[in-house]
Amino acid sequence: MEAVSRADLAQILAEIEHRMRLAEDRGTVAGYIPQLAGIDPAQFGISVALPDGTACSAGDAATPFSIQSISKVFTLAIALGRLGDQLWSRVGREPSGLAFNSILQLEQENGIPRNPFVNAGAIAVTDAILAGHQPREVLGELLRFIRLAAGDDAIHINRAVAASEQATAHRNIALAEFMAAMGNLRNPTALTIGTYVHQCAVEMTTDQLARAGRFLVNAPGCPRLVSPARIRRINALMMMCGHYDGSGEFAYRVGLPGKSGVGGGILAVVPGRASIAVWSPGLNASGNSKLGTEALEHLARATGWSVFG
Amino acid sequence: MEAVSRADLAQILAEIEHRMRLAEDRGTVAGYIPQLAGIDPAQFGISVALPDGTACSAGDAATPFSIQSISKVFTLAIALGRLGDQLWSRVGREPSGLAFNSILQLEQENGIPRNPFVNAGAIAVTDAILAGHQPREVLGELLRFIRLAAGDDAIHINRAVAASEQATAHRNIALAEFMAAMGNLRNPTALTIGTYVHQCAVEMTTDQLARAGRFLVNAPGCPRLVSPARIRRINALMMMCGHYDGSGEFAYRVGLPGKSGVGGGILAVVPGRASIAVWSPGLNASGNSKLGTEALEHLARATGWSVFG
Amino acid sequence: MEAVSRADLAQILAEIEHRMRLAEDRGTVAGYIPQLAGIDPAQFGISVALPDGTACSAGDAATPFSIQSISKVFTLAIALGRLGDQLWSRVGREPSGLAFNSILQLEQENGIPRNPFVNAGAIAVTDAILAGHQPREVLGELLRFIRLAAGDDAIHINRAVAASEQATAHRNIALAEFMAAMGNLRNPTALTIGTYVHQCAVEMTTDQLARAGRFLVNAPGCPRLVSPARIRRINALMMMCGHYDGSGEFAYRVGLPGKSGVGGGILAVVPGRASIAVWSPGLNASGNSKLGTEALEHLARATGWSVFG
Amino acid sequence: MEAVSRADLAQILAEIEHRMRLAEDRGTVAGYIPQLAGIDPAQFGISVALPDGTACSAGDAATPFSIQSISKVFTLAIALGRLGDQLWSRVGREPSGLAFNSILQLEQENGIPRNPFVNAGAIAVTDAILAGHQPREVLGELLRFIRLAAGDDAIHINRAVAASEQATAHRNIALAEFMAAMGNLRNPTALTIGTYVHQCAVEMTTDQLARAGRFLVNAPGCPRLVSPARIRRINALMMMCGHYDGSGEFAYRVGLPGKSGVGGGILAVVPGRASIAVWSPGLNASGNSKLGTEALEHLARATGWSVFG
Repeated sequence: MEAVSRADLAQILAEIEHRMRLAEDRGTVAGYIPQLAGIDPAQFGISVALPDGTACSAGDAATPFSIQSISKVFTLAIALGRLGDQLWSRVGREPSGLAFNSILQLEQENGIPRNPFVNAGAIAVTDAILAGHQPREVLGELLRFIRLAAGDDAIHINRAVAASEQATAHRNIALAEFMAAMGNLRNPTALTIGTYVHQCAVEMTTDQLARAGRFLVNAPGCPRLVSPARIRRINALMMMCGHYDGSGEFAYRVGLPGKSGVGGGILAVVPGRASIAVWSPGLNASGNSKLGTEALEHLARATGWSVFG
Repeated sequence: MEAVSRADLAQILAEIEHRMRLAEDRGTVAGYIPQLAGIDPAQFGISVALPDGTACSAGDAATPFSIQSISKVFTLAIALGRLGDQLWSRVGREPSGLAFNSILQLEQENGIPRNPFVNAGAIAVTDAILAGHQPREVLGELLRFIRLAAGDDAIHINRAVAASEQATAHRNIALAEFMAAMGNLRNPTALTIGTYVHQCAVEMTTDQLARAGRFLVNAPGCPRLVSPARIRRINALMMMCGHYDGSGEFAYRVGLPGKSGVGGGILAVVPGRASIAVWSPGLNASGNSKLGTEALEHLARATGWSVFG
Repeated sequence: MEAVSRADLAQILAEIEHRMRLAEDRGTVAGYIPQLAGIDPAQFGISVALPDGTACSAGDAATPFSIQSISKVFTLAIALGRLGDQLWSRVGREPSGLAFNSILQLEQENGIPRNPFVNAGAIAVTDAILAGHQPREVLGELLRFIRLAAGDDAIHINRAVAASEQATAHRNIALAEFMAAMGNLRNPTALTIGTYVHQCAVEMTTDQLARAGRFLVNAPGCPRLVSPARIRRINALMMMCGHYDGSGEFAYRVGLPGKSGVGGGILAVVPGRASIAVWSPGLNASGNSKLGTEALEHLARATGWSVFG
Repeated sequence: MEAVSRADLAQILAEIEHRMRLAEDRGTVAGYIPQLAGIDPAQFGISVALPDGTACSAGDAATPFSIQSISKVFTLAIALGRLGDQLWSRVGREPSGLAFNSILQLEQENGIPRNPFVNAGAIAVTDAILAGHQPREVLGELLRFIRLAAGDDAIHINRAVAASEQATAHRNIALAEFMAAMGNLRNPTALTIGTYVHQCAVEMTTDQLARAGRFLVNAPGCPRLVSPARIRRINALMMMCGHYDGSGEFAYRVGLPGKSGVGGGILAVVPGRASIAVWSPGLNASGNSKLGTEALEHLARATGWSVFG
């Protein structure tokens, strides 16, 4: 993949931002978390962080948003650091081919979620980190990891969003209780789900998220929080499973490892080159940011950034 | 990704070949195609072709084997050249999460296969190319494409293997008839399946296959049979779906786009750098070459070749 | 269950016929068999045959219609007579919970259909009877059985309907080929499906069908073609599986063992009392005659005929 | 169906009891409810209650056992009495074709359970009765209904069993939470599940249960707790769904409407004739009493009692 000058990058992002402002179909804001349902769908922000920590941005790049499932990337990194390959006895590494919140495969596959990025898998990962600790300890560790990666101590959890999510967490609780029935949950369901909804409620701007994503870029200057071998594996999992049953589409159109969140954010990694964060609240049919995906497709084409050639 | 010297490459391949010779668990040779069932599982070959067409090899790199589902990469390239994005009205672009020969999703998803690399999808692709032509015309075009890519006019179809496969093609016929019932097959089933079993019976050595795979490397010197944009998309599909319900595992362990065949071959692409072919007849539980996967994992680690960082 | 006088019965049937003539929503005529698609949905006939062979009728009770899947009751009786309990190694005895032509469970359950009344199961039953014989021998035996049961030698197969069905039999061929792949089809697919489409094309009037159904009534005067123990079992299977994924609804509303056909006919059995045939071409969402079901519900309520109390 | 003299009945039951005492394969006692796991599998009791309330018994007919899912028959009767056909907006009437505790169809069918006798359906029924009331009110109503039906005020709930079941109710909680997520649970999950585990913990002897079952016999002398039309419908549901994915087998072998419980009890109804209760703790593969089913098969054959002719 080619290097792109900062000037070119700034111009590309400005063009993308302009185009996205004019978009008529902006997707649909997720309605099932009350605190997020009222958010203004007109917002759009994009940031590209380079290995040295400098960033180029456009649009609402300084507006905090709920990272939601993007948090799964950070908890996976922490879990692999803590448990290593033992984690894989509790969660698989294959695309599920089903929606992010599906419970079907838990029944068909003995309570072992397909991968760490579907909800069931992420709950199992959080449960694995929790391991008898208090939720606040785990959430503290998560915030330390993210702040270190981003180089920004202001990143925090929005407790109102967490509370709102907790109140409507029936489906996630069903996933957790089903795993408990199959012996794949070790802590009380309330603790694991309580931790999970708080990790999802971390708030970041695209600027912060892009900088935090540099720990997966594997280039000189990036924070070294996990080993290069593990970076490759996390990127592989993001590529294969990061967009649920829209992962194939994302790989086809964007060609970069990425992880989406229902808050409308996407983190994408350009190995060796850059970390990208984009945010627009409206979602497509697979639950991934509609304009976020389109913006990344434009960016990938304009820069020639793709892992596929 | 780094360049690797030819001398280093030769040594790495020799080491891999040595290690694979000593492997005790070589997987299981596929039993359902009589002509392939009797093959000697002790064989192993590996070849790396560089953009300029030179190749490094080790082991049984000059023994022809049945490429089987690896042929789906070539027919996909031909179909996209012929139909462009219209192809996607007949087949999807998502991992299936199910076995290569599953019929479940055809029923649940109106006869549209998940992707071009599961059997149903590949049959739909072949049907799309057939489009009223005679099977021999389509097979002629396929051979011309492969010979051009490989720079080798000796590549041919093994008619005995095709006949053997035809005689036991019940499951593929079921997939085709089901798609016919849903309006997603346009030619008589016998013609489409007849073409399909012949395309699967193309025989190549790892040397030939590695050279043929260069059309997906996207580097100066490689044969230009499809555009760079399309190369990226085909590589994306290989990464996401090339190993069926073992695609996630392959991405995690090897980190390269690849396509396996039930004959024990795997084609893997190192964008910008090289094309790799490996062959060993014994399969793992997902139907992919067991030693072939292990060899690629060693090679990726030794060379640092991975699209993920 | 109470006896009902012939006079009362005649009046009840006349009332039902009157009510059905006035029905506005008559369901939808099945479109996938061209020869049946053009049939006039305004037709309705009903007949009740008593053990002595006399019958009460109303409406279009002398118009022949295609019995389609009702033929599965007769082939099941023949198969059990021929193979006894060995038949159950090839087909199950449980409701499928899925549509009549579903292929899902074949994949999940090793090619063994759930019961003899879903399409896959009936094809397996026909294949079991075929067992190396010629289709015309099997069809001859089927006609002899039906003619004997009905006491009417005029009953025949409509070859035009059979040919029409053969031409659009893709989905049934898919079921057969899938079973062949799993070792649960013993004859060439073309022979088994050829036999199957012809058995479905038997034509009868409701008068004939009601009389033929008396072999399942188990009362003095009825033709003794199968033993009382087997009668009970066939009736049990009709109750549990005779209306596909609408079997529960039929049991709830009508309360009698019954078997429907996509031609709009239903055969229902009142153990010890009577055999009922009804016909109206329009189908409900589960593929069972809409007015036929309603007529049986009225009849059951008016006569007190129900096996459930 | 024929009448059977009390003397003949007593002899038949004695023979059955003798045969069951000698059985070598007694099935497997359910292990997932700790309080029930330790029960002695050698026990066997059977009782036949006639419309007048007299009963014939054999074996351990005076030993109380946990009726578990047989309670679903009584709560269904209460729910229909309270809500009438409105109940069917929340639960279906079709066999599920899946295990008693499956969650698959909830996801595929918008949180509406297939029928009132699978766990999800029974939880929905209990939730419908609860409707803002206190669990003890609902449990009081249930006990009153059962005591009235049985003519025995000693019937009670075993609180130790309920507590044991509550502690291991993860899978039932998962079903409830999933339904809550889909809007098909109206009370707090803890209240509904708390009520549900207590209703399952009702204890009865086969003598008591057989007498209680007379409300479904629909004959002079039986307690009139529901209308004849509703009796037929409940019996239809028991026939179609009373033994989960073993319902077809039960209909085929026994031929009577019945409902099993994981405690090893089965209630079967002979419309117009009798109510039968049988109990033996060992279960078959579908979770129904192994010897209980065999005993009912013998009894049905010896008496000629079958709804199917």
